[in-house]
Amino acid sequence: MKQRVLSGMRPTGKLHLGNFSGALENWKRLQETYECFFFVADWHALSTDYAKTSDLRENVHLMLVDWLAAGLDPRKSTIFIQSYVPEHAELHILLSMITPIPWLERVPTYKEQQQELKDKDLSTYGFLGYPLLQSADILVYKADYVPVGIDQLPHLELTREIARRFNHLYKPVFPEPQPLMTEFPKIPGTDGRKMSKSYSNAIYLSDTREVVWEKLRTMVTDPKRIKRSDPGDPEICPVYGLHRVYSPQDIIKQVDVGCRTAGIGCIECKQWLNTALTEKLEPIWERRSRYLNDFSLVKGIAEAGAKRAREAASSVLAEVRAAIGL
Amino acid sequence: MKQRVLSGMRPTGKLHLGNFSGALENWKRLQETYECFFFVADWHALSTDYAKTSDLRENVHLMLVDWLAAGLDPRKSTIFIQSYVPEHAELHILLSMITPIPWLERVPTYKEQQQELKDKDLSTYGFLGYPLLQSADILVYKADYVPVGIDQLPHLELTREIARRFNHLYKPVFPEPQPLMTEFPKIPGTDGRKMSKSYSNAIYLSDTREVVWEKLRTMVTDPKRIKRSDPGDPEICPVYGLHRVYSPQDIIKQVDVGCRTAGIGCIECKQWLNTALTEKLEPIWERRSRYLNDFSLVKGIAEAGAKRAREAASSVLAEVRAAIGL
Repeated sequence: MKQRVLSGMRPTGKLHLGNFSGALENWKRLQETYECFFFVADWHALSTDYAKTSDLRENVHLMLVDWLAAGLDPRKSTIFIQSYVPEHAELHILLSMITPIPWLERVPTYKEQQQELKDKDLSTYGFLGYPLLQSADILVYKADYVPVGIDQLPHLELTREIARRFNHLYKPVFPEPQPLMTEFPKIPGTDGRKMSKSYSNAIYLSDTREVVWEKLRTMVTDPKRIKRSDPGDPEICPVYGLHRVYSPQDIIKQVDVGCRTAGIGCIECKQWLNTALTEKLEPIWERRSRYLNDFSLVKGIAEAGAKRAREAASSVLAEVRAAIGL
Repeated sequence: MKQRVLSGMRPTGKLHLGNFSGALENWKRLQETYECFFFVADWHALSTDYAKTSDLRENVHLMLVDWLAAGLDPRKSTIFIQSYVPEHAELHILLSMITPIPWLERVPTYKEQQQELKDKDLSTYGFLGYPLLQSADILVYKADYVPVGIDQLPHLELTREIARRFNHLYKPVFPEPQPLMTEFPKIPGTDGRKMSKSYSNAIYLSDTREVVWEKLRTMVTDPKRIKRSDPGDPEICPVYGLHRVYSPQDIIKQVDVGCRTAGIGCIECKQWLNTALTEKLEPIWERRSRYLNDFSLVKGIAEAGAKRAREAASSVLAEVRAAIGL
C-alpha cells in the first residue's frame, strides 16, 4: 500500500513561478510515488484574513486551476478544498480537548506573525489554534509524510506531539507524520528579490506569452553591466538565477561564459531564457486554458476529491471516536 | 412557525430529582410550545474530562434513557447526541476565526473553574474554547431561546456578542438568542445539602421503590426534633423541602402544622412524601424500564434526532458559508 502524503496551500489566487518550482513541481513528483492529498486551505485563510473574504472563492478557484494546469493529476492525487471536508473540523475539536494552550503559544510563528502583521487582527481564538487545525488536517488522513520547508518544522513537531499524546491517552491510532524535506531552488523575481506576489515582481502561470517576454525583457540584470561591451557577473544577475532553474545545462554554460566575456548581450540572454521558460510553460498554458474556461470541470474535480477525502477521513474519525469512547 | 429552543446537558449518567425538577420538567413544558432541540453534550464532557472517558458512552446512554423516562417526547422534540452532529464542529471553527481570545478569557467560569477544579487539567485549548462551542451549539440552529440559570447568563451574552460580530462582518445570519429564565425549585438531598451526585445524597430516577423509601426513611430531618413529642421546624427540614416540591397543597399544610405541633412523627411525614414522590415517579419508572431494556429503541431515537438536527444545522451552515464567501 502506498504511503500517504498530505499538503495544502492557502488560497492566494493565481500562482507564480516561485510557487510552481517551490511546491507544485515537488507535488507532481510526489504523486507518482505516494497516495497524495492536496488541499486548498480556505479555513486557514480565515485565521489571518477573516475580515477580507470577498475574493476568497475566486482565489480558491484560480488556485485549483493553476494546480491542474501545473500538472497535478486528479486521477493520481486527491485534490480538494478544506471546507468541503468537515471531518477536519471534527478532529480539530477533539484534539483541542487534549492540547495544552502553551503548546500553541510557543509555536514560533504565533508571536512572530503577531509582531510582523500588525495591520491584521491576530488576537483571535482561531489564529492561536491554526497549528492545531494543521495537525487535524494531517492526522485526519493518518498521513505518513508532509513536505515541509525548514520554517514549518515546528508545526510538524506539534502535530507529532499531539499524535503521541492522543495515542498515549486513548489508543495508538495515529502514526507520527514525518517531514519530507526538499531543497527548493530559489526563484528570483523580476526585480532581483525573491519572487513574491506582494513585491509585484512575479511571473504568473497565467501570464501570456507576450506578458512573460515583456517581464523578462525589462527584468533587472547585473547593474554594473551598462554597455553591451561590458562584461557582466552572472552570479548577481537574477536572469541567470532563472536560467539555472529553467534552462538546459549547455545554455547555462553558454550564458555564464557569454556574460562574463561580453560575448552575448542581455537581450540575447533573456531570449534564451524566454525560449526555455516558454517551453516549460506551454503545456501549462494549454491545460490552463482548458480548466479556466470550464468552471464545472474544476468544480467537479474538487467535489470528487472532497468525496474521496471524506471517505478516507471518515474512516480515521471512526477509529478516533472509538478510541476516545464517544 | 414555532420559535426554537436549544438546550443541552453534559452526560453525567443517571439523573436525580434535582436534574428532573431543575431542568427536565421545564424542558417538558417547553416542548409543548417551542420547537425544541435537546442534546447530550458529549464533546463538552471532554473539555474538562478528556482523561476519563471510559464510562462516557454509558453515561450518554443512561442520560438519554432518563430524558425519555422523564417524558421528553421524540415526536415533539429533537433529541440527539452532540457528537453525531459534526455541523457543531464546523460552525465552531468558523466562529473561532472571529472570536477574540480575551472574550473567552473573561467568561467568569474560565478562571473560576481553573481555581476550583484543581484536580483536573483545564489548561487546554478546548477548555478555553468551550463557551465558543456552546455558542456554535446554539447558533447552528438559529435558536431563539435558551433556558438558562443566572450563572450561565455570561455564556449566553458571549453567544450574542459573537452573533452580532458575525452579522456585522458578513451578513445578518444569526438572531441573537434570548434567555428563558425560569425559577427552579431548590431540591435538597437526603443530607440537607443541595442534591448532587457528588454529595452522594441524591434520589435517582432509576432508584427502585424500595431504594427511594430507604433513602427517605433515613433522611436527615430537623436535628433538634429528637423525640416524637418534640415539635419541629419544617423550614429547616429537608424532608419538608421535598414536600414543597412534590406534595399537594393540603399535604404540605398538614405537614407544616403537624411538624410544628408534634402532631405527626417524622416517619409519618416521610411516608406522605413517599406517597407523593412515588406517584410522580411511577410513570417515569414505567417508561424507564421500557427504554432501559431496549437499547436499539434509544439508539434509534438518538439517530433520528441527529438526522433532524443535521438537516436544521446544514441549512444554517449553508447560509453561514455563503455569508463568509466560502
